[in-house]
Amino acid sequence: MFRKELKVLDCTIRDGGLINNYHFTDDFVKSVYRAACESGVDVIELGKKLIVSEEYTREAYGKWNFCDDDDLKMIIDSHECENRPLVAVMFDIGRVDINSLQPRDQSPFDMARVACYVPDIDKGLDLVKRSKDLGYETTINIMACSAAIRTDLIEALNQVEETAELDYLYLVDSYGAFYSEQVTDYLELYKKYAPSKELGFHAHNNQQLAFANTQQAIIDGVNLLDATINGIGRGAGNCNLELLLNFLKNPKFDVRPIYKAIQEQFVPLREEIEWGFNDIYGISGHLNHHPRAAMKCRSDKEIRDLCYDFLIEQTQLNA
Amino acid sequence: MFRKELKVLDCTIRDGGLINNYHFTDDFVKSVYRAACESGVDVIELGKKLIVSEEYTREAYGKWNFCDDDDLKMIIDSHECENRPLVAVMFDIGRVDINSLQPRDQSPFDMARVACYVPDIDKGLDLVKRSKDLGYETTINIMACSAAIRTDLIEALNQVEETAELDYLYLVDSYGAFYSEQVTDYLELYKKYAPSKELGFHAHNNQQLAFANTQQAIIDGVNLLDATINGIGRGAGNCNLELLLNFLKNPKFDVRPIYKAIQEQFVPLREEIEWGFNDIYGISGHLNHHPRAAMKCRSDKEIRDLCYDFLIEQTQLNA
Repeated sequence: MFRKELKVLDCTIRDGGLINNYHFTDDFVKSVYRAACESGVDVIELGKKLIVSEEYTREAYGKWNFCDDDDLKMIIDSHECENRPLVAVMFDIGRVDINSLQPRDQSPFDMARVACYVPDIDKGLDLVKRSKDLGYETTINIMACSAAIRTDLIEALNQVEETAELDYLYLVDSYGAFYSEQVTDYLELYKKYAPSKELGFHAHNNQQLAFANTQQAIIDGVNLLDATINGIGRGAGNCNLELLLNFLKNPKFDVRPIYKAIQEQFVPLREEIEWGFNDIYGISGHLNHHPRAAMKCRSDKEIRDLCYDFLIEQTQLNA
Repeated sequence: MFRKELKVLDCTIRDGGLINNYHFTDDFVKSVYRAACESGVDVIELGKKLIVSEEYTREAYGKWNFCDDDDLKMIIDSHECENRPLVAVMFDIGRVDINSLQPRDQSPFDMARVACYVPDIDKGLDLVKRSKDLGYETTINIMACSAAIRTDLIEALNQVEETAELDYLYLVDSYGAFYSEQVTDYLELYKKYAPSKELGFHAHNNQQLAFANTQQAIIDGVNLLDATINGIGRGAGNCNLELLLNFLKNPKFDVRPIYKAIQEQFVPLREEIEWGFNDIYGISGHLNHHPRAAMKCRSDKEIRDLCYDFLIEQTQLNA
């Protein structure tokens, strides 16, 4: 698949940080940044931009939950790169201090990605507007749309369409519940109600479909694709960046630096933390459930592989 | 997805046996048979039908490489089932003694699946004819078609079309190389040159696409779908039966017995043998290579995770 408009966003650190509370070593983050640079990825998301507080300390929550300017600069300056990727951070509704942000030309990051649920769309779009006013590229990532009421989602999309400050509208399969035909169906809705917006897609791999659904999104016209090195990410993880770059024929991409990072950095990390498909996440995705119950199950050594018990328990919740 | 013609073939024992030389315990095979019965699967393939010889002994190669009548009966008789699945065995060209076979009505199995490469299509179709003469349902599984020369494949398909004794023609992604668009393209070819044949599809999971490609095959009109419990199978394994049954809405299927078998039988087995996606198989699939190099790499503890080195080495082979 080749299309010159296609762009790839590496969210390895941001989504991967959800499983280790953003406690990556600086060397690890630098390696990921270097791999992103050398592979020709268009955007790299280095974390969240939360407010530090007495409860949310850098020590407990890891520096990439906060993405201070100095930390971002330390990473960006660690590797010279002729045509470096844009740097993105994620905003969570109600947990970002927009007033403390510098304009983009005085800031180390370039893109603000606003994650919000359908009921918070007004707050999300307000953050988008204020970010655009500061010069940032903007996205809105509407989470858990597979569990949203259709009319609410349509109303949200109408508001999105009216927001000139928004650059990218994301379809996010938060629960890893979509089959490819559903990706197509939701994207039809997005294109119908927000026809002027460029689209992005963010998958989860609960049913071994993150990569396949990302391909479907490309076929359906999406031009900004999220992926992570080795598929790292919360729960079942994300679309594997290396598989995606293999699929994309755009000559600007080179997969080799990604495999190098896997060999040197991710293989050891896999000994410490778990991500990726397993039976429990497969059930959770199929049932279109938030992954929290599946993650809790996987964290308990006594029950982590009791998939039949988990299926029965979770199915009864639906009864 | 619901279509009343859709049938599911469980090849857990046959494809899984490729990684442990068919040394499953009788209890394990009985559990798989029971799960297949209770889940409503249409066909279960219990192994290969090779000739015992001094070199190929039951002791060294496992009883499910030979599928003696008594062994098959022992499994079938172990679980009463109102509407039991058809029992299939696989024939390898030149390694089956067709003259020793009983007619179907005196045999414990119902379906003969003939695996062959494109150059062996005459031999394969001869086996199909002789099997049909004995009353068996027949399939031809053309292997490695992703590496076949197109004109040779077309010639083979022409011969397939002329073989009235054949019930199912299989598209087999032996190398796990296909993207969904390629599944569609090959199936178009199959439908063009063998329009009278019912189609089957057999995936491999090298690029995390076995399940997704099986969905694509369904969309493209395939009605006989191979899958294995927990995706067990050579190398990266197969389409996960449990994910497939979740996807299929046909009320005749029940996924719960499959998850029960996973919990009780496959979780312990995973401690002993490896199957499923990993970086090495992903590279092998992307390069459209036979999985033997990837399997050799995975069997060597020193290099099994050196995916960058494997990529460079394998890419140079293509140079």
